Amino acid sequence: MDQITKRDLESPAGFGDWGPAEAIALDRMLGTIRRQYELAGYTPLHTPLVERPDILFAKAGGEIRQQVYGLRLMNPAADSPTDEKDLALRFDHTVPLARYVAANQGNLLFPFRRYAIGPVVRGERPKDGRYREFIQADIDVIGDDRLSLDHDAEMISIISNVFDELAFGPFTIRINNRKLLKGFLGSIGCDTEDKARLARKAIDDVEKFGTDETLLALAEIGINQEDASHALDLLTKSYSTDDAFTLLRSRDFGPEFAEGVSELEAVIGTVRQLGVPQHRYRIDLSVARGLDYYTSTVYEARLDEHPNLGSIAGGGRFDNLADNFSSKHLPGVGVSIGVTRLLRRLIKLGIVKPKSKTISSVLVASNDFTVEKEVHLNRARLLRSVGIPTEIYLEKRKLGGQLAFAAKRGIKLVVFTDSGGGAPTGHVVIRNVDVGQQVVVHEDKFLETVRGML
Amino acid sequence: MDQITKRDLESPAGFGDWGPAEAIALDRMLGTIRRQYELAGYTPLHTPLVERPDILFAKAGGEIRQQVYGLRLMNPAADSPTDEKDLALRFDHTVPLARYVAANQGNLLFPFRRYAIGPVVRGERPKDGRYREFIQADIDVIGDDRLSLDHDAEMISIISNVFDELAFGPFTIRINNRKLLKGFLGSIGCDTEDKARLARKAIDDVEKFGTDETLLALAEIGINQEDASHALDLLTKSYSTDDAFTLLRSRDFGPEFAEGVSELEAVIGTVRQLGVPQHRYRIDLSVARGLDYYTSTVYEARLDEHPNLGSIAGGGRFDNLADNFSSKHLPGVGVSIGVTRLLRRLIKLGIVKPKSKTISSVLVASNDFTVEKEVHLNRARLLRSVGIPTEIYLEKRKLGGQLAFAAKRGIKLVVFTDSGGGAPTGHVVIRNVDVGQQVVVHEDKFLETVRGML
Repeated sequence: MDQITKRDLESPAGFGDWGPAEAIALDRMLGTIRRQYELAGYTPLHTPLVERPDILFAKAGGEIRQQVYGLRLMNPAADSPTDEKDLALRFDHTVPLARYVAANQGNLLFPFRRYAIGPVVRGERPKDGRYREFIQADIDVIGDDRLSLDHDAEMISIISNVFDELAFGPFTIRINNRKLLKGFLGSIGCDTEDKARLARKAIDDVEKFGTDETLLALAEIGINQEDASHALDLLTKSYSTDDAFTLLRSRDFGPEFAEGVSELEAVIGTVRQLGVPQHRYRIDLSVARGLDYYTSTVYEARLDEHPNLGSIAGGGRFDNLADNFSSKHLPGVGVSIGVTRLLRRLIKLGIVKPKSKTISSVLVASNDFTVEKEVHLNRARLLRSVGIPTEIYLEKRKLGGQLAFAAKRGIKLVVFTDSGGGAPTGHVVIRNVDVGQQVVVHEDKFLETVRGML
Repeated sequence: MDQITKRDLESPAGFGDWGPAEAIALDRMLGTIRRQYELAGYTPLHTPLVERPDILFAKAGGEIRQQVYGLRLMNPAADSPTDEKDLALRFDHTVPLARYVAANQGNLLFPFRRYAIGPVVRGERPKDGRYREFIQADIDVIGDDRLSLDHDAEMISIISNVFDELAFGPFTIRINNRKLLKGFLGSIGCDTEDKARLARKAIDDVEKFGTDETLLALAEIGINQEDASHALDLLTKSYSTDDAFTLLRSRDFGPEFAEGVSELEAVIGTVRQLGVPQHRYRIDLSVARGLDYYTSTVYEARLDEHPNLGSIAGGGRFDNLADNFSSKHLPGVGVSIGVTRLLRRLIKLGIVKPKSKTISSVLVASNDFTVEKEVHLNRARLLRSVGIPTEIYLEKRKLGGQLAFAAKRGIKLVVFTDSGGGAPTGHVVIRNVDVGQQVVVHEDKFLETVRGML
């Protein structure tokens, strides 16, 4: 054991292992997301784990500035690289995208659609369900100078398709426009960014603290009671899409508000035309989502039956992604799914239940591996050649032990020769471990029988 | 532009971007490797990017000790995590596997087969084709106390299947056994690990420096000329498998050598039974591969037509993977493909040619997107619903520009309504951009025609 204790064998807090069953569930989720992203015409872009700190800090706002990890060689040698000050771990996929687009703008075809699926690292204090390393799955589309609002709508349709296929239960995508909120708050006296932020925070917390508390908080910012009640009505009540537009169109809170209304109408119109089912989305004027970043459309999805989980996907439009890196105007819109953070919680809540510890459908087993070796290796080769993942039991062990191994691993079928049990020569036993039943077939019918039983 | 210059927009040396075309080629390669690993019954295991340094250094030999990056928060706050001394980036997938197996040995089913595909980071001085961050794709199988040599053979068959499917051209897997080399070198006077290492180095370099130079180097270690010539004969000449065994069986270099011969025979015997084509492997007594790590079987693959590329995959058996972490005897055998380092070189050499900048097969375009919007969005939805990746052109732009966009992006088919060109109502134009031909079909035949043209 040397100096390493059992406790040291746990990975550091916030950097967890995904054992086989969980890793299979994770890969399945990632596969679905990737497939839906690709179906919508998004192309992979792999940027490195490591970026220059000046790039990261040019775009890192608020808390994230305190969460960036730099790299340092633990035992540098004479010929070690000496550029440690240039090396920091990415905290999201959006800043690397901004850098990539700015660096390659001359060679890229716009609109540029890319997806990115991979780990990001944030130095947050680890707590329940908060991981320092987590996989994010993002899509973004970047325009050269302009980008139609139809892209915002397409994002919403992609989120809808992703969570339909993932089948975690009913979900709703809540859609808003930041200009609407900004215009409205400005018109009721929140004319500075500070005041607007406090007001948004108070309104965001209405579910937590209740109406009275929220009205008090708004009064403290200097909003009179009538305006404050008005704000709560507008921002926290639930309206049907049509009612929401009727309400919005009847209000006059200045030109930015009006622009927000008309953008939101355009986006919702295309969402409809894209065939997103009506129960999958609704207008929610309280959705804010990191407003220092997004400039107009914002959206986030939640599971209807698990509102406490919070947002399961979210995103929005940013006016100029690369404004620190390029003199070009490069508007974009994107969506991000915090895959591993979400899946850990879904597993914990029992919404996702990892079962099988393997991808294999068949275990090739043997009563006497030495004698039967060639025929068994051949069976495995045959199964694999038609695309059936197959594990071969290669150790010497009693057949009963091998059947128990298959059951524990979650392998459905075991294939073996019943040399002692009276099965005729040239025949193979195919046993369904789940239900404990088996058939004996001639080797010629082996493959089609296995296929039928899977 | 602020302070960030064009040069700063490049990712740091040794941490490269994979743009769309290269990323598609990379994902295809990773997909093939993953599929072959899963077909052989291997299950994913995701361990984190970050491990405790004491774990890494317990297993990091030689140069790698100088290449481990630790983490440090660049702007820590009052409530920041304070365990920086526990955080270092993994340099391979094998040490994390050792930790995981030791930590979970009570719950794991042995033999435990897992694959790991993901980035590792090494602080090497970046140079041509040497990346500090690279993706490794590993499989390993770990036994509880014992592990049949048939697993060593199965690894070789998996490598063969992987590179068959990858189709980078003819390749050969060179197989050896470390006991053979150790026994032989011991019998000719290399009785210390230092002498053996120098002798192996000299023999490894024979292609570089020639026979005379190598004999001189061996003489300096204290090996007499007869033994040295003998060594060169045995270790560097090419023999057929049968001739190699005839030769090996005729020599007596002590019990360790004899054990190596019999293990090698067992492995090659199973490789044959697994149906690996004879031209895909050969015995090569000079293959050493990080001998401080592996204990018996070792192998590595090379492309026959590109020997300068060096090893494209390699691995071997380690007697006790987790000896620093567990009192249990946990023998293992594994293989590793340095995916991104290899692919960068294959692209550079023109062996892999990334072409298309997209996964999409179809671009839905439009002469007048405003008028035709609904029908076009619907076409895209239809194509996606049957699994055809489809990009919609959502900006206003002349049709010719959209066709040029498709050609540049590498999208094969463009679908549009020929409102000006005389195509009847209810008809759709499907244009093959590659060959510049198009057909006009009724909307009812749209989907089957697209499928036929893909």
